[in-house]
Amino acid sequence: MSQVCIATYRSYDDKADFQKKALSIAVGLTVGSWTELPEAQKAEMEKHLGKVLSVDVHEGGPGERYADIRIAYPDINFSRDIPALLVTVFGKLSMDGRIKLLDLDVSESFASAFPGPKFGLPGVRELLGVQERPLLMSIFKSVVGHDLANLREQFYKQALGGVDLIKDDEILFENPLTPLEKRVETCMEAARKAQEETGQKLLYAVNLTGPTSQLAANARKAIAAGANAILFNVLAYGYDALHELSSDPDINVPIAAHPAMAGAIYPSPHYGMSASLLLGKLMRLAGADLVLFPSPYGSVVMPKEENLAVKDALLRPLHGLRTSFPVPSAGIHPGLVPLILKDFGTDVVVNAGGGIHGHPMGTAAGGQAFRQAIGAALAGTPLQEAAEAAGNEALKAAIQAWGVRES
Amino acid sequence: MSQVCIATYRSYDDKADFQKKALSIAVGLTVGSWTELPEAQKAEMEKHLGKVLSVDVHEGGPGERYADIRIAYPDINFSRDIPALLVTVFGKLSMDGRIKLLDLDVSESFASAFPGPKFGLPGVRELLGVQERPLLMSIFKSVVGHDLANLREQFYKQALGGVDLIKDDEILFENPLTPLEKRVETCMEAARKAQEETGQKLLYAVNLTGPTSQLAANARKAIAAGANAILFNVLAYGYDALHELSSDPDINVPIAAHPAMAGAIYPSPHYGMSASLLLGKLMRLAGADLVLFPSPYGSVVMPKEENLAVKDALLRPLHGLRTSFPVPSAGIHPGLVPLILKDFGTDVVVNAGGGIHGHPMGTAAGGQAFRQAIGAALAGTPLQEAAEAAGNEALKAAIQAWGVRES
Repeated sequence: MSQVCIATYRSYDDKADFQKKALSIAVGLTVGSWTELPEAQKAEMEKHLGKVLSVDVHEGGPGERYADIRIAYPDINFSRDIPALLVTVFGKLSMDGRIKLLDLDVSESFASAFPGPKFGLPGVRELLGVQERPLLMSIFKSVVGHDLANLREQFYKQALGGVDLIKDDEILFENPLTPLEKRVETCMEAARKAQEETGQKLLYAVNLTGPTSQLAANARKAIAAGANAILFNVLAYGYDALHELSSDPDINVPIAAHPAMAGAIYPSPHYGMSASLLLGKLMRLAGADLVLFPSPYGSVVMPKEENLAVKDALLRPLHGLRTSFPVPSAGIHPGLVPLILKDFGTDVVVNAGGGIHGHPMGTAAGGQAFRQAIGAALAGTPLQEAAEAAGNEALKAAIQAWGVRES
Repeated sequence: MSQVCIATYRSYDDKADFQKKALSIAVGLTVGSWTELPEAQKAEMEKHLGKVLSVDVHEGGPGERYADIRIAYPDINFSRDIPALLVTVFGKLSMDGRIKLLDLDVSESFASAFPGPKFGLPGVRELLGVQERPLLMSIFKSVVGHDLANLREQFYKQALGGVDLIKDDEILFENPLTPLEKRVETCMEAARKAQEETGQKLLYAVNLTGPTSQLAANARKAIAAGANAILFNVLAYGYDALHELSSDPDINVPIAAHPAMAGAIYPSPHYGMSASLLLGKLMRLAGADLVLFPSPYGSVVMPKEENLAVKDALLRPLHGLRTSFPVPSAGIHPGLVPLILKDFGTDVVVNAGGGIHGHPMGTAAGGQAFRQAIGAALAGTPLQEAAEAAGNEALKAAIQAWGVRES
């Protein structure tokens, strides 16, 4: 059983001796000093000492010279929680010049403290009874300042279109107009009413907010009121808060992780953490069943290779943890569905806001257009062709409004 | 009483119509849509609508064109906690191209939910009985892999040199060699023993770690074992965790905020949050009594103007909150003391690690050299001159080792 967690960094420096720098990191972030230790003590301290695994220097012009450095940190040095791991490998180091944390390979022993997603991708599919196709999620058009009647109507129209999941806006906090429990009751009632029409199950991810110490209690209140999923702004509270929520046996509904604040950390080439670590591996380790992240298609842009790296981190084997559903978000309209499936496969949640509410025939037609696009894409039928089929008027109108994007 | 929180952003874009962009932020992050609302509803929604206060465009070459944008967000839209505020003003927006959150001016109403530092700068001075001079803090040389006897010895030697505060290493987590309560008992015993020699009070900031839900309980355990201060890796847990700890009446000791992970957020000009907001204003609002941040003198570098902006955020009036002690850290030796006082004034904690343990005459002499340097700097005596005075041999040796830096 491996006993080290391995951090991969990219360190930029025009002149540095990267081998020396790597060694100083490995020693400085573990035993503090090494060469000056008496030999007898070295034997004792060896098991705490960080080790440089590799230093891969990329020469380049001024500002472009960097090294990818891999360092192994003995598990014995930190407790098995994400704050301890991050503070060890990147706490002080994050402030030491141009350096970005690209990846973390945690040991099996470390990972064993993390049950990971309680439902994960297979569990969410099971709850919805949808095994084959991509799922469809929609977002309220606007929530701030609206009352329960308005939310009910918005919810019902979205649900009628055949979406699988509806999520709260991440900026909807506890408020007198739509307080948590009333909101859940109202939306779940609308969900039931829609289900009578569509025959389709639906998850409503209500935004979990409030003081850190009250998160679990608020989650339980929401669940008691009927909530069957939770949305959580993970980075505003820390990964450990998500880990505790997902590990709580009473919180027996899927948790969707929202990426709010992530743009403060992943986009710079020189600082912060990679998107695949920040929104991929660590979200899954902490127990997110679904993870939202910026799509490569919309206004909130992340380069496609980073997107796919996030997806891979959510789906590839990771110490036996369940996979997390990738939810690339922003700028999604029905004409993008074949491209999304090409990029992400079928294990993806198609997530739309404006692409549903802005449909020329209304919100319900917006959802239908997506479902028709998904059906066509799975059947290998070009959208333009599918749009001409009887019953696919919603798709036709969507394509007339937004077009089809092939790449 | 003001009812809005004002966010200041710097947005980089070579071509954008920044006025339009500002408007889309103000609407998008509040009511969602505006121009298409029926007039009757506008009257209802007006109180929720974000307002653009100013857009200050700085033309420049490719990659250098930016605008400083100020937007007012109505308090009514979010609960009075830091996660809600940050998710509102920078949650989704952080991912929308090159944009950095420079500052937040919270309303008096929002601030009224925050008691701020329980002790603050004046309270820490009072606990120590030191009113006039800068304080001196020291850091263990190395802790990982060491046992209680070793920590006791390191602690005692540091304390003998006349330091006011000793802090744990931020990477010391719960471990079998030096578990929390035993560590506190051992170190406080060493503190008492040293006090018999020096007659001087001392605060020991023990590192508060563990699962989020156990932080308060761990803090109470540490205090019951005799801890008289706490060190906390705030950014690994989120500001709200600090806010809850500092607001807890049972946690009646000063809290020192460590900046671990901050380098993932403040250094880029294009992304993240400014140091003065991240390590200054928000740490103080959340209740940090002391705040560590990278000094402009050492290897972990922050430009001096950013340093002074952090200090200003900790010290200038802020809704009646107590001030927080600035603790510029890294690369500090006795020869820097006059410069530190010139840059930071006397309301500063001089924080040293290698500059104390690496002293040619040993750790205790390291502390003494700093105290002698502080005395000389306050008296306006040049260090080289003070070093020749009888009794100041420690200072003399420090200057021989590290020199004096004037600017």
